[in-house]
Amino acid sequence: MSRPSGRKQENHKISRELFVLTYGALVAQLCKDYEKDEDVNNCLERMGYGIGVRLIDDFLARSAVKKCRSYSETADMIAQVAFKMYLGVTPSVNCSSAAGNEFSLILDKNPLVDFVEELPAERASLCYCNLLCGVIRGALEMVHLAAEVTFLQDRLKGDAVTEIGITFLRKAEDRKHKR
Amino acid sequence: MSRPSGRKQENHKISRELFVLTYGALVAQLCKDYEKDEDVNNCLERMGYGIGVRLIDDFLARSAVKKCRSYSETADMIAQVAFKMYLGVTPSVNCSSAAGNEFSLILDKNPLVDFVEELPAERASLCYCNLLCGVIRGALEMVHLAAEVTFLQDRLKGDAVTEIGITFLRKAEDRKHKR
Repeated sequence: MSRPSGRKQENHKISRELFVLTYGALVAQLCKDYEKDEDVNNCLERMGYGIGVRLIDDFLARSAVKKCRSYSETADMIAQVAFKMYLGVTPSVNCSSAAGNEFSLILDKNPLVDFVEELPAERASLCYCNLLCGVIRGALEMVHLAAEVTFLQDRLKGDAVTEIGITFLRKAEDRKHKR
Repeated sequence: MSRPSGRKQENHKISRELFVLTYGALVAQLCKDYEKDEDVNNCLERMGYGIGVRLIDDFLARSAVKKCRSYSETADMIAQVAFKMYLGVTPSVNCSSAAGNEFSLILDKNPLVDFVEELPAERASLCYCNLLCGVIRGALEMVHLAAEVTFLQDRLKGDAVTEIGITFLRKAEDRKHKR
């Protein structure tokens, strides 16, 4: 057996399958706990938020990225560095507003749903991967960026792609104070 | 940026931190759901069992291992191939019975508890990582090996190492039928 060449790197990596199945067990448990899809979605988002708040330090330390100077740069960073690092995929990024504060991350393939064929009929409003929205929102908040993050399209619901919308919320008050 | 050299391999790997935090959210949710540690432990074990039952196909396909010819070989396979593949760590293996059907997997470092400092006082009987026992039991059952899998020591509870005990259950009836 060959020794891993980059030990530190190796230590941070695990197989995705165990994660995907464990995430599935989490969603299944919440579906037992809450009757309404909306409550499951909110709970996943809150959990994700808590994860994002903690994960940001790990991300900044390991990615060694510089401070982003625009929303556009931030959206690219999430897609090209963070998604790649944590989920092994790189979504494409679209800017979807003239104001330049709305972005879409488009995933041709969503690694979190590897073992999920389709949502059961009685769970048609479930945002299965809503944890991700919370993670992004929590992590952004820790770098002082308020954002709304929601699923806009979902292949699990029959859409052609999975699309996560990020709307950066401009803080008028903050700007005024800075002047 | 360099392109990954082995794309297939890359696709299967994710960063451990997101998994560890998601697992933490799962345990926290179960602690909300169940008052008794024992119920949380049982639930984690059952969830793990379901995961193991599904994960074994992935393991056999990706590891391309040959059929094990002894309990000892099986225990080594779990430690050196499965743990390495799914969690990025390799526990050491001890055989702890003269009968040759009891083994210990000893983890100096448990990757699942990276962000956990200690168990809260009111959760002293929680087997935080009990999902792993279920995964091992479920996977073994799918290759026709009945086993009991439990935590024998846990660093989260102040033990020097984390130790998972695997007792292979001999099936007297099966043997008789084969004669």
